[in-house]
Formats: sequence, C-alpha cells, structure tokens
Amino acid sequence: MNAQIESNPEHLVGADFHRALGRISAWIENYLAHVEQFRVLPDVRPGDILRQLPSRPPDEPATFDTILDDFEKVILPGLTHWNHPGFFAYFAITGSPPGIVAEALTAALNVNAMLWKTAPAATELELRVLDWLRQMLGMDSQWFGVINDTASISTLLALAAAREAKPELNIRTRGMSGRADLPRLRVYTSSQAHSSVDKAVMTLGIGQENLVRLPVDREFRLVPATLANAIAADRAAGMLPVAVVATVGTTGTGRVDPVADVAAICRRENLWLHVDASYAGTAAILPELAHILDGIDGADSVVVNPHKWLFTPQDCSALYTRHPEILRRTFALVPDYLRTSEGDEVVNLMDYGVQLGRRFRALKLWMVIRAYGTQRIRALLRHHIDLAGQFAGWLSSTPGWELAAPQRFSLVVFRYAPADFDEDDRNEANRRILEYVNRSGKVFLSHTVLDGRFVIRLAIGNVATTERHVRTAWSLLREAASQL
Amino acid sequence: MNAQIESNPEHLVGADFHRALGRISAWIENYLAHVEQFRVLPDVRPGDILRQLPSRPPDEPATFDTILDDFEKVILPGLTHWNHPGFFAYFAITGSPPGIVAEALTAALNVNAMLWKTAPAATELELRVLDWLRQMLGMDSQWFGVINDTASISTLLALAAAREAKPELNIRTRGMSGRADLPRLRVYTSSQAHSSVDKAVMTLGIGQENLVRLPVDREFRLVPATLANAIAADRAAGMLPVAVVATVGTTGTGRVDPVADVAAICRRENLWLHVDASYAGTAAILPELAHILDGIDGADSVVVNPHKWLFTPQDCSALYTRHPEILRRTFALVPDYLRTSEGDEVVNLMDYGVQLGRRFRALKLWMVIRAYGTQRIRALLRHHIDLAGQFAGWLSSTPGWELAAPQRFSLVVFRYAPADFDEDDRNEANRRILEYVNRSGKVFLSHTVLDGRFVIRLAIGNVATTERHVRTAWSLLREAASQL
Repeated sequence: MNAQIESNPEHLVGADFHRALGRISAWIENYLAHVEQFRVLPDVRPGDILRQLPSRPPDEPATFDTILDDFEKVILPGLTHWNHPGFFAYFAITGSPPGIVAEALTAALNVNAMLWKTAPAATELELRVLDWLRQMLGMDSQWFGVINDTASISTLLALAAAREAKPELNIRTRGMSGRADLPRLRVYTSSQAHSSVDKAVMTLGIGQENLVRLPVDREFRLVPATLANAIAADRAAGMLPVAVVATVGTTGTGRVDPVADVAAICRRENLWLHVDASYAGTAAILPELAHILDGIDGADSVVVNPHKWLFTPQDCSALYTRHPEILRRTFALVPDYLRTSEGDEVVNLMDYGVQLGRRFRALKLWMVIRAYGTQRIRALLRHHIDLAGQFAGWLSSTPGWELAAPQRFSLVVFRYAPADFDEDDRNEANRRILEYVNRSGKVFLSHTVLDGRFVIRLAIGNVATTERHVRTAWSLLREAASQL
Repeated sequence: MNAQIESNPEHLVGADFHRALGRISAWIENYLAHVEQFRVLPDVRPGDILRQLPSRPPDEPATFDTILDDFEKVILPGLTHWNHPGFFAYFAITGSPPGIVAEALTAALNVNAMLWKTAPAATELELRVLDWLRQMLGMDSQWFGVINDTASISTLLALAAAREAKPELNIRTRGMSGRADLPRLRVYTSSQAHSSVDKAVMTLGIGQENLVRLPVDREFRLVPATLANAIAADRAAGMLPVAVVATVGTTGTGRVDPVADVAAICRRENLWLHVDASYAGTAAILPELAHILDGIDGADSVVVNPHKWLFTPQDCSALYTRHPEILRRTFALVPDYLRTSEGDEVVNLMDYGVQLGRRFRALKLWMVIRAYGTQRIRALLRHHIDLAGQFAGWLSSTPGWELAAPQRFSLVVFRYAPADFDEDDRNEANRRILEYVNRSGKVFLSHTVLDGRFVIRLAIGNVATTERHVRTAWSLLREAASQL
C-alpha cells in the first residue's frame, strides 16, 4: 500500500473543510435573513443551467471554495426559492433554522434507521416524536406512527395495507393477476383528492380506473351518501371495495371531507379508511381547528406532512395507522443478512414500508418541535391563517375579484372575474395575471382549475412570510389586472 | 395583528442560530476527525433512549444550545455510528465532507425538484450529474437517469415500467385484479438477489410467489440456462413472464450475474431486464473492473447507489433506463394544479416516479464528484478493495478460518471453521464470535446465511477506514475464536 493511498482517508477533513463549514454557515445565515435578494422564480430558460455545467465529469478534485463559488454563480441563479417569504405556490413550506441544523447533523451521522440495532436512538426518537405529534393533533393513543419521505409513499403504503387487511385475498403472496378468485378491487375518493392517490393505485396494480373519484358537494367535499351508493353499486356488479381516501385540506381549495360520516360507512362496509391530511392536518394543533380531525379515530390510517406546514425541511411525512400489525404484515420481510438477536423486543422500522434505507428524519422533526415549542407553532399557524384571511378580505371587498371558494386554513383560491368578461375571457385574464405576477420575481403563486374555471391559489406556509409579502402579492395582482 | 405575531417571522434567525451554526460546524468537524471516540454499536438496551425523552411535547421553545446539549447527551450515546471507520456491517457508507456541506445547503434552500419550473437548476443539475455518473460507469449515451431515495424504490419503479412496457396489458389504467384476460405475471431473479426485489413485487401486486428465485451456480450467480428453462416452463403453464432482475454485486457475497447472457435471453423473450448494481456498480468506475457492467447496454434499467459506495450521504439512488418514455408513461399524471406552460420543452422529474416531493439530491452528488474528482474516487475504491484483499489474505492463511466465497469488491465473507467442529458447532461459534467482536464497540460486522452456514461479512466503504481498522477487526475475530 503506497503512501498516497494511505493518506486518502484523511482527505477533505482538513483546513479546506473547516473553511467550507464556516463559509456555508455564514451563507445560510445570510440566505435566511436576505432571501428576498433573490427572485422567487428565476429568470432562466430551459437549458440555461445545463449549458454552464461541463459535459464531462472532472478528473481532478476541486477545492470547496471553487465548488461553492460555482454553487453561487451557476446553481443559485437557476433555483426557484421555496424558502422565500414570497413563495405562495402549491403549498408553501419552510426550511427552518432548527431543521437546517438537524439536516447537517443527519448527513454527518449518516445513520440508517432500518433496524433498531442499526440506530437505536433514531428508532426510539422517531417513535417518541411521532407520539408527540399525535398528541398535538389530538389523536388517541391507539395510533402508531412512522416517518416516510413523502405523502405519495405514505398513501401508497396505507393502500397496500388496506389490501392486506383482507388476509383471505393473500395479495402479498399470490398477487392479483391470473386469479379467477379475485374480483376487481375498488378504491374511493373524491374528485378533489390529490394525484398521489392515483399514483398509488396505479403502482399497486389496482389500476387508475378502479379509483372511483366521486363528485363533490358545492363545498367541494365528499358526500357520504354518494360514497355509500357507489360502494353498493360496485358490490352489486361483483366488484370488491377495499378502501376510501378522505381528505382533510384538499389541494384545490383546502376542503375537509366529513371524516366521521365516511368512517361510519367504512366500518359498516369493512373498508379501510385512509385520511390524507398531509397539508392541513397540522392545523388541528390549534384548539379552534381541532374539529377538522373529528372522527379521525374511526379511520385506519392518516398522513400528515411536517415538511408541509410544520416548518420541517423536506422530506418528512408522518404515516399513522391504528393497525401497525397489518402494515407490518404487508411489508415485513427479513432476509438472513438483516436478522438481529433482539427479535420482537424491538421495533424495526424497515418492517413498515417499502424502503430499506431510512434517513434519520426524526432528528429534524424533534429539533423543530423543541425549538418552536407548541406555543410558537400555534402562533405561526394562526399567523398564516390570519394573513390568508386578510388577503381574502381585501380581495372579496374589491370589485372584479372573487373568491373561488371561501378561504380555508392558509389557502386562498380566487380569480379576477369582472362582470363584463365571459368565462373564456376570465380564464385567459387569470392566466395572464398569474404570469405577470410570477414574472415579477417578488412572489410566486400557482393555479388550479375548478369546474372549468382557471383560478389562482395563494398558500401561506413559510415562517418568514409577513403581511408585507401578502400585500405585495395583492398589489401585483391588481396591477396585472389593470394592465390587461 | 399584534406585535408578538408580527415578530414571529424573524424568530430563530438571530444570535442563537448564529451560535448554533458555529457549534454544529465545530461539532461536525470534530466528529469526523474523532468519530472513534464513539463505540460503533452503542451499549444500550431497548427503551433506554425512549425513557430519557419526555412523553409530552414541549409547550415552550428551547434554545439551540439546550437542544444540542440534549442531542449530545441523550441521542448520540444511543446511535450506531455508520460514519465510523470501523463500521463494516451490511454495506459500509460515508457521510463525506462535501456531502454534508451539500445537505446543509439543501435544507436551507428546501427546494422541491418536482417540476422543471419549481427548480430549474436542480432539475438540470440532476440530469447533468447523472450523465457524469453514466460516463464514469462506461454506459452508453442512450441511458436516462433520475435520482430516487433508495434502491428499493428504484427497483420498484423499474418493475412497474416493465409491466407498462407491454402496453396491451394496460395495467396502469385497468389494474390486475378481476381480469380474465390477464395471465399470472412472473418476474425472475436469483436466490441471491436482494429482498428489495421481493418488496417490489409484493407492492406492485405481482405477488411474492410470482417472483421466481432461481438456484445459482457454485459461484452464487444466476445461470442463463436455468433462467431460460424457467421462462419456457412458465409460458407453457400459461403464465406471462415480464421481467428479470440481475445483480451486479450480491448482498451475500458480492457476485456478478452474467448480465450479457441474461440480456440476450431477455431480448429474445421480450422481457425487461433490470440490473441491481446498487452496491458494486460504482466499482465499474475502475478501468480494471469496468467488465462488471459488460452487457449493461442490453439491459432496460439499472440502479446504482451513490449513497452506498460513492461517499454520498443517504439518500441518493440513481435509476437509469433506456426507455424514459416507458417510465414516464408508467407514472406521468399531471393534475391541473401542477400543469406548467413549458410543456414538452422541459423534463419534469416527478413524471418518472411515484413521489411528488423530490429533495435537491443532485447537489450532494455533484459536490462529491467535484470534491473528489474521478481520480480520487478511483483511489478510494481501490483502497477499499485492497484492504478487503489484505483481510482476505490474512484470513485464508490462518488455520481454522475460511473464506465462504472468494473476495469480491470490498466485501469479504468468511467463517471460523476448525476441522474438529461440526456444522452446528461452527454456526454457533461464528454467532458467538460476531457477538464478541461487535460488543467491543471498535468495529461492527454483520452476517448472512449461505447454504445453511452462518457466515460473517466484512464490507469496507467508509472513506476514513484504514488498514488499522481492518487489523483491529481481524485481531478481535481471532481473540473471539480463542476464547470460545
């Protein structure tokens, strides 16, 4: 073994790394304090960044300073700044200080919390901190929680468990194809449910056409009677209903399905009820909004994303189930090389999902809850809801503008709809308004389509957002409308 | 709006955060330099950590210093130190300095690279850096790469695409249940393939019994003739073969399936070939090991994990496919709220998988490749292989010890097997040896079972590992054997 190779192990843990840590610490501090120096949406065309990146990998090592110079010069100008207080698109999120601190430590530790043995503290912290969150949400003690990367995966796992909740089907072992004994499986949700539900049924082999997307009431909510009828019709047609997905806080308008009524139907019909509360669920931390989870203890699983509206950097999605033994039966599979001596004495979190690799995500959620405490979390959630309320107030008192649906949570859905515009003109006007506003670089809003109407969404979720940012959005919107 | 709420937005971005960044920078630097002050495997019993964590969430905020004190006092003593140079279990990995720097920045930016528009630079950097890795692996330019969290997910996505590669089945839309027109789908792999393949077929609804795990040759490799026969037999029985999973670097013994021969069968039989090269694939970066990917361009997809043997912190799994249009057809689904005006001009990476949320993982892979350069990456890989070779050499020249299979890559699989022990005694002896060695806290090795024999695995993959650590493992092993 030559000296050069012997010295490799020490490589990068020297003065250069020391300087790099200092540089990024200063950079991060400055970024959070002055993120508004950046446009929310960058002014770049497809290919602009690619073009600046060498087409061949480097042979020679670069210093951290060189790499960080390139990061600032090439990468940063091409990023959409999700951590900007003017980010109001989709669901706004926060890479908060405690979350950033935790992620740096997580990368340094590089722990894989697949088995208790491979990360005892990570496993036990995950169990504890998800139990904290459960209490904050007002859910009873029968819930077992596990952290996944995304709500897409949490919902996929829940629907896989729903399938395995009927052990006589034995889908885990026998699969679903070529089986004369297996009717068509059916899953129900509303027309307003998130696309992740479609992706889950597509992936599970249930098929998108077996996701029954039910029409909603005028408040964009699932209608229990419609659900019951659909289940009855499918049974009459020889199909097999297995699960319902209700939403607490729909993506389009923030609506809350009647969970308690849906749960009663599911219990009667022996269906698994999964609740997608990935965005709005955390609002139940507020006593005045605890009612949004009314009936939740009658559900079988629920997903709440701390990386959405609980100031935790991506990725952190909490999946709770009242039937951990079914979730475990769906996925547990322990090859020889992963067998440990602790046996049933411990929880091995890899048993509750698809992924074997499990980052130490509990650390950031723990640090976020510790750093803010439930009091400040409540204050921040209320602040966001108040800001959304103010915006909705300005809007609904201004001629020509209308709410597409009453404001819920921190989400406002609206459009410019002057009386003398027909519906086509209105759609086109709102498209142009949105483009104008986003081109400013000061705020970023997104849109959706409701009953054929193009509407604009403003969602608040960043801890740095203040009234000033919401006012800026409102000024830009009016400015855009005046220039049509 | 009262003053307290108005001040919330500034919360945590002050002197306390400044001090916290300084403290964790110093801590990380010290940790990487002196990680050996920690036991690799902690000396804790189930519940030890849980007991120290309050059962109720805190109402009041805590300072960063308090939180970090608790991190050091409560969490750290209960962690398994994956970033320790004496970590030789499973596949050893590295949370490297450039990876740590990148993850801190990633958390601060908190970008979601779901759409080009929501992160142009993250999307284009991902395309570029995966093209760099492709070149490093010697794969041709027809491969399209996308980053996932884990190989478990990459393999799941690949097998979902395999299913959709037969568009006449229309499984995405119609699903697999209650269909008289759909025969039993079958997937083939070897007895040595990773458990993630089982989890994928279970999740996809193909069913574990439809994963045909073929017997291997004496070198633990898939046998092309056996595969061809199994396919023929299944066809004769009216079943529908859809995919084969070959492995480059099996978990048990690091074996390489004959990819070129398997690819020829797959082409002839019209099956999708997925190659699991998640651990050993990166060894193809070495000219002298480029042959391990011989025939790869005849495959349809391949997974290589930079978070395994390419010094990138978890999570970073690269999935390549020669049929991006099929992967896209399997998963693309764009609801109104995610539609952007760029259209087909851009790549929206959310279209190539289940997860909508996509962390900015390309940043760390880019920083790792930049910071080491391909030269130092090659030196580190060679160093690990050399160390494994030295260990295998000591072992095979010592009476009583034997390699369970010749060393491959940085993995050595072995056991203590004195001539006067019967097979039961040997199994028990190796169990006790492994326990003794791991109890030392200086190294952590794991095990597997090969043909009923309990064998010990030593895998090298941490950049800080030197000959000294491997010597320590070897001393402890002999010491343990002498005390049986």
